[in-house]
Amino acid sequence: MSETADERTADILDVSGLQGRREQEVTDKVVASFDSAKDERFREVMQALVRHAHAFVRETRLTEDEWTAAIEFLTAAGRITTDTRQEFVLLSDVLGISMLTVAVNEPNLGDATESTVLGPFFVQHSPRIELGGDIAHGASGEPSWVSGAVTDTDGNPVAGARIEVWEADDAGMYDVQYDDGALAGRAHMFTDAEGRYRFWGLTPTPYPIPDDGPVGRLLAHAGRSPMRAPHLHFRVTAPGFHTLTTHIFVSGDPYLDTDSVFGVKHSLIRPFDRHEAGTPAPDGRRPEGTWTSVRFDIVLRAE
Amino acid sequence: MSETADERTADILDVSGLQGRREQEVTDKVVASFDSAKDERFREVMQALVRHAHAFVRETRLTEDEWTAAIEFLTAAGRITTDTRQEFVLLSDVLGISMLTVAVNEPNLGDATESTVLGPFFVQHSPRIELGGDIAHGASGEPSWVSGAVTDTDGNPVAGARIEVWEADDAGMYDVQYDDGALAGRAHMFTDAEGRYRFWGLTPTPYPIPDDGPVGRLLAHAGRSPMRAPHLHFRVTAPGFHTLTTHIFVSGDPYLDTDSVFGVKHSLIRPFDRHEAGTPAPDGRRPEGTWTSVRFDIVLRAE
Ligand SMILES: [Fe+2]
Ligand SMILES: [Fe+2]
Repeated sequence: MSETADERTADILDVSGLQGRREQEVTDKVVASFDSAKDERFREVMQALVRHAHAFVRETRLTEDEWTAAIEFLTAAGRITTDTRQEFVLLSDVLGISMLTVAVNEPNLGDATESTVLGPFFVQHSPRIELGGDIAHGASGEPSWVSGAVTDTDGNPVAGARIEVWEADDAGMYDVQYDDGALAGRAHMFTDAEGRYRFWGLTPTPYPIPDDGPVGRLLAHAGRSPMRAPHLHFRVTAPGFHTLTTHIFVSGDPYLDTDSVFGVKHSLIRPFDRHEAGTPAPDGRRPEGTWTSVRFDIVLRAE
Repeated sequence: MSETADERTADILDVSGLQGRREQEVTDKVVASFDSAKDERFREVMQALVRHAHAFVRETRLTEDEWTAAIEFLTAAGRITTDTRQEFVLLSDVLGISMLTVAVNEPNLGDATESTVLGPFFVQHSPRIELGGDIAHGASGEPSWVSGAVTDTDGNPVAGARIEVWEADDAGMYDVQYDDGALAGRAHMFTDAEGRYRFWGLTPTPYPIPDDGPVGRLLAHAGRSPMRAPHLHFRVTAPGFHTLTTHIFVSGDPYLDTDSVFGVKHSLIRPFDRHEAGTPAPDGRRPEGTWTSVRFDIVLRAE
């Protein structure tokens, strides 16, 4: 291509030109091909997808080689994806599409707790623990006492709310990335009559999103870090309320500003207070090494 | 969602609103994450991709369930893709992205022959035939005598141009879709000193693009036919000229208006004249049944 980007842009901005008309004709034909779809929402979404995808191709003057590279990227993403490795979710995450979808679906919150990305490591059936139980199940890391209460936006406790929590071990690995298929570092529990919950987790540590595939190569080419700011995942479900999918982040962590999936929200950052070895925890336990504690009160939004 | 589409659109058009600002903030952060990419063209393409993908999510108010459906669609497309089945190319084809990329990369043609999509069935190494040879190699169908000349835009013959041709058999299948791995219905040859070429192919018949995967389900949901207008693929390569990737289409065919990949261009439609059984062909052969003949002169554009 000997044209400059400016000349190329000039070509397409000249919509009265033959070239612009030929390109618009393609877009118009494809949009019209969805006109007779019976499902109105499907038609709306597909026609918008076509318009935006075509605008991208026209604006960038995408070359045939770049088109081929895109096909090869998607093919490689498909090849590396398994039941426990979801490269398409990672792609959506690093392009901020996941966080934007969260934002679009979270209207005026009032005082309710903010959401963030689900991420690729959620598992449908986690072990149930009693309040105060330990989610580690062999996942290594510094113990962390996590507690709080679930209320509605008027401050009334939500009893019996299902709280699912999951996190990486201190090597930065989730259980689904282990070879042995064991569940570890994840559990669910239910709030008590006053809406309270508590459990032993692990102090979150930074970890890279899986970066040995095409998404990792994309990040490297962009000069972006694959590291996620340390976090603990929550998913809170209760009848009559919107399901809340969120994290808490560790205050003071250097990765808060460059989280690879743009998941950090200021309101979700919490201090994890560190305690000396031997200091008794709220449940009387005296961990052998240091341990941390954090409080996270959760406000659910009514449906 | 109890809001109407209009209310949802109103939400985002109110860019002064908190919601609009929160969404724009996500987009700005993701665009900025590519700022330090060293490869300028990569940065330009990725930032445009982010802007257009985000505009799509915001305009459609994409729901979390729709996001999940998109991830599942791409995952299914990855799973069905093999060395001989390319679902991502099919997706690009049925969304007109392939044809638009062709259009963007084909500036003012003058008198040169127009391009169309490569399609998913091209194979790098096809058998070589002599001029006048038969490409069928066992692929069934009505014989078709195809001939023409390759010239530059001034009408000068292009000798030694490599002409690759490939097509489906009369059951609508390409050789790569056969179980036995045999090459059939494809070959390459070189033009003679006067730029002429000729070969026995098969009269093209309509066929569906592979529709037993996610792209087929998408077409069905859209009420669109998977059928392609009957065609014969050409790829013409010669030193000093742009490689031409094109088809010829059969005039009068009912699928010309609804080709599933938007590949038809008026200038590429040719009459395939049908001849009675026993009529001698230009090479003296007398096919047992009916046969057709078509002339396709090719004009290459200098590099
Ligand atoms: Fe995570
Ligand atoms: Fe084809």
